[in-house]
Formats: sequence, C-alpha cells, structure tokens
Amino acid sequence: MTQIRIFGHQNPDTDTITSAIVTADIEQQLGNEASAYRLGNIGAETQYALEHFGVKTPELLETLEDGADVILVDHNEFQQSAENIEMANILKVYDHHRIANFQTEGPLYYRAEPVGCTATILKKVYEENDLLISKEMAGLMLSAIISDTLLFKSPTTTEEDSVAAQSLAEMADIDIESYGTEMLKAGASTKDKTAEALITADAKSFEMGQRTTRIAQINVVDVDEVFERKQELEDAIHSQIDQEGYDLFVLVVTDILNSNSRVLALGTEAQSVERAFDVSLDNNSAVLEGVVSRKKQVVPQITKALS
Amino acid sequence: MTQIRIFGHQNPDTDTITSAIVTADIEQQLGNEASAYRLGNIGAETQYALEHFGVKTPELLETLEDGADVILVDHNEFQQSAENIEMANILKVYDHHRIANFQTEGPLYYRAEPVGCTATILKKVYEENDLLISKEMAGLMLSAIISDTLLFKSPTTTEEDSVAAQSLAEMADIDIESYGTEMLKAGASTKDKTAEALITADAKSFEMGQRTTRIAQINVVDVDEVFERKQELEDAIHSQIDQEGYDLFVLVVTDILNSNSRVLALGTEAQSVERAFDVSLDNNSAVLEGVVSRKKQVVPQITKALS
Repeated sequence: MTQIRIFGHQNPDTDTITSAIVTADIEQQLGNEASAYRLGNIGAETQYALEHFGVKTPELLETLEDGADVILVDHNEFQQSAENIEMANILKVYDHHRIANFQTEGPLYYRAEPVGCTATILKKVYEENDLLISKEMAGLMLSAIISDTLLFKSPTTTEEDSVAAQSLAEMADIDIESYGTEMLKAGASTKDKTAEALITADAKSFEMGQRTTRIAQINVVDVDEVFERKQELEDAIHSQIDQEGYDLFVLVVTDILNSNSRVLALGTEAQSVERAFDVSLDNNSAVLEGVVSRKKQVVPQITKALS
Repeated sequence: MTQIRIFGHQNPDTDTITSAIVTADIEQQLGNEASAYRLGNIGAETQYALEHFGVKTPELLETLEDGADVILVDHNEFQQSAENIEMANILKVYDHHRIANFQTEGPLYYRAEPVGCTATILKKVYEENDLLISKEMAGLMLSAIISDTLLFKSPTTTEEDSVAAQSLAEMADIDIESYGTEMLKAGASTKDKTAEALITADAKSFEMGQRTTRIAQINVVDVDEVFERKQELEDAIHSQIDQEGYDLFVLVVTDILNSNSRVLALGTEAQSVERAFDVSLDNNSAVLEGVVSRKKQVVPQITKALS
C-alpha cells in the first residue's frame, strides 16, 4: 500500500493545515496509509490552534514524485498547489472554492460544497462514514471554521458552517467566542512581520482571462498600523511584480473587528480594481466597505473586471 | 425562484438522460424549481427504459441564456455540454468522469466519485437527504447502472454500483438479468441506423495535449454486422474529420456479450492508437481484447500516447 500525501494550498492558512491533518485522520480510519503535509510555513494563528489542541505541525512537502497518490484539500487550482502536481495521481479533492486550472487523466473523488470552510465538509464525511471524531480533530475543524468565517462575520458563512461549529465546540469542549477571538488575535499582529512576509503569508495567484493576478490578504485589528508602512509594502509588491510578471497585485488588509478592508493595488491592471468595486484609487489604495472575503467579494469581482 | 435546468452530455446515453430526470426529482423534493433537459436525441436503449417505467422523455434544451442556473450530470467537460455553458451559472455537478476543461467563477457543489455510474452517486444523495425514492426513479437509476456497466461486465463497475443496483432492483421490483439483457439488446441493433448515426450517437470530444480527439462508441451484439459497412463508416468519419478538424477519430465497437472491442481509427494521429494499446492497425482497425470502457480503457491510454 502506498502512502497517500495530503496537503492544502501554498501559503497555508488554518483551514488548509487543519483540513490536511483531519483528512489524514479520516483516511487512516478508512484503513489507508496517509500523512498530512504542508506547502509552506504556518502562521501564528494556525500555530495557536495546533498548540491549543496539542497536535503536531505537518511536515513540509519537499518533493512530489511523478505518479504519487495525493489528496488535495482546500484548493484545486494547480498554480496554488505543489510543484509537479500535474504529474501526481489525484485520488480525492475536498474543497469549497471555485474550480479552475484543474484537470485529471482519470475519474476521481471530488467533493466541493459552497460552504464557508473545508472543515464543514469534512465533518460530514466523518458522519457519512460512521467514523470517530476525536476531541483534537473537533478542535481543529472548529478552528478552521472560525478562521475562514472570521467568527461567522464573513459573508461566506453558511448556516451549515454555524451549525457544524456549534456541534464541534461541544465535542471539543470549547467556548467559541473567547477561544475564537484569542485565536484570531494571535494571527492579527503585523508589527513583528516584514513587508515581504505580509504580502506573502496568505497570497494566491489567479489566471483571469489573459492576466495573472496575485491577491494577498492580511487579517488585522489595526489597519493603520499596516498602512503606516505603505511605501515599504509597495516596494515589496513591485519587486514581486517584477520577479513573477503579475499583471495585477492586490493586497487586501481586512479589519476583522469592523468587517471591512482597505486594498493596495499595483501593476499594469491596477485600474481594474476601480471597475471591480466602483471606487477610485487614491495613491493606489481604496477602502472597500463590508468586504472581508477574498473568495466571494474580491476574486469574482476582479475576474469580471478583467474579462 | 428561477427554474434550474438540469442536463447531461451531448449525444445522450441512458445514464445521462435518467440522471437528469432523477436529479430534477431530487431538487424538487428539496423545494427547488427544476426540470430535466436533453441535449440531443435519445437512443433505443434509453427509450426502452423510459417506456418500461412510464417516464416521459425530457425536452430538448434549445437555448441556454447567459447566467441561467444549471446543474450538470454525468459530464463536466464544456465541449461535451450545452452551447454557451461558459456563460451559465453552474450550481452543481454530479459526475463520475475525469475533470477537464471545466471551470467556474465562484464556488459550487461538485460531487464526483470514481464509480461506474452517476446514478450510484444519486442514490446516495437521496439517502443522505432522507428523500423518497419512487419506484420509477429506482427503475431509472437501475437502468443507468446496467447501461454504464454493461450488466456489471465493464471494469468500471465497482462494488458500490453492484450493491446499489441490487437495492434499486428490489425497490423497482425488477429482475436485473432479464430486464438488463432486454434493455441492452434494445440499443444494440445497428441494421436500421445510418453510418452517420452510428458514429454520432455516443461520441465525445476530448482535448488531449494539443490534439482534438473524437471517440465514438457503439455497443453491439454482432461486431461483424458493423464492420461489413467499414467503407461507409470510414467515409462518414472522414467527412466529420474534415468538418470539425479532429486530429484523431476512434470508433469503438464493443461486443457486449463477449466483452471486447474492435476499433476503427482515422486521422493524422491514428498511429497513437497503436502506441496506446500496443497493437498494429490493419486497414485502420484492430481488436482490443477485454476493452469495453471508453472512460477507463480508452481515454487515459490515448491521452498518454498523445502527450
């Protein structure tokens, strides 16, 4: 029996890391040899969750051999996945994003639902297969839902996410509000991070029409603290645009307490952000009222503006 | 509430037509307005099944408006779908094929499993949602499984398909073996069909590397009856190659009683069939022992040979 490698997207966030760990647990209970991996360094928020429930950080995936059996969680677009993913044997996908730049040679198990978090789907998979949800796994799935929905404030939150979170909180014996606020705050400090770390930590690339767009997001409690370093951030972004050839780079700085975002848009297609959100960029920046979700409130809008 | 349009692939077979009908029933039970459609004429096998269970043939989908809400069943590749599918709002997909040439702007519900038949997945959806399976819907799902698995002889057949079929046969009060043989035979006669009908009825296009391949399949009880008309078939295939620009056209004539196939391969990439199956083409034709499944035993092999 070969080892199944399970991983989420590059620049891993809490849902991606915990979903890999949880899916490995599911596969092991189903009798398969499987291990969770990560495609990059974990952030302070994820570390808080892992430490709280006493679960080890997955190993870094160094190389992916041709033909390796893999399961993807929390992503499907190849440019967000492991290098050499085109040559892997994708057995399953658990995801809650749009499908794009993804293909396989043969049939597979693909489970996507338009919910706020991959963990909400994984909880159903445990139940459908009559598997045991340990306290640790319940805590990790709960952490993922809190993270992806920003404590249920994101418009990506569905009734299913809230119900799943309530039930997981009981299994893990956790007070959602106090644990969730502490966990989000743990990941929200920007002072000790370099500009490069801020624009890299949660950044994803998207092919939109003929353009390559990079959209990075930071969740913070103090937006001004970030924009005091605007020049430094712009330099770091320009350097990435030059290196990677992005047509558009958008940094979305999300205020998790007041539920809106301020963006910084650079690149030859920066104007598309004005069309996408009906705003004027002032010194490359604009406030987007009520916008907290990259997936639902940023990616589709810019995709449309660029097509 | 807008009407959800549900349909399977072009050149509809029994699984595609019945899965559209069954999914419409599921959506209606979930409280949504939904109707099944077809993208082309139905074959004699499908007609046999619909008549046996007293279910009406779905209407032909004439046009698909921009932004229409749709659910795809039994396919995902856009070139196998409705014209204008790129502009539709794809809410859900139920499928059991590889994923390719498929993308959406936003998140969706996507349920694919590597089983022999879409109906096997739909049966689980009924159960997961505590919905009622009527005798008619059970009969249609059973017909789809018999058709796609050639009465469980195809290597695409999984344990899940067999178990689902047994249970559906009980619900529909049907003897699988006798009903299945009659249904398959109803679709297996080629005498009354034109060469063009034979190469069109169950044909799908695939993008493979830089090449466009067309793979048509006919299930028959008398392979020689088909190859007596080889010249006529070749003329019809050449005419399609000229019109559509296919690099390769493979007609797979499957003997449903003896479980093997004879292929006819034409086009500039016809040699790839020799590499794919390690055979020599004799007058553009070769016997493929044990090959009955396009999805599992033909498409991946030719994809590899062409990449």
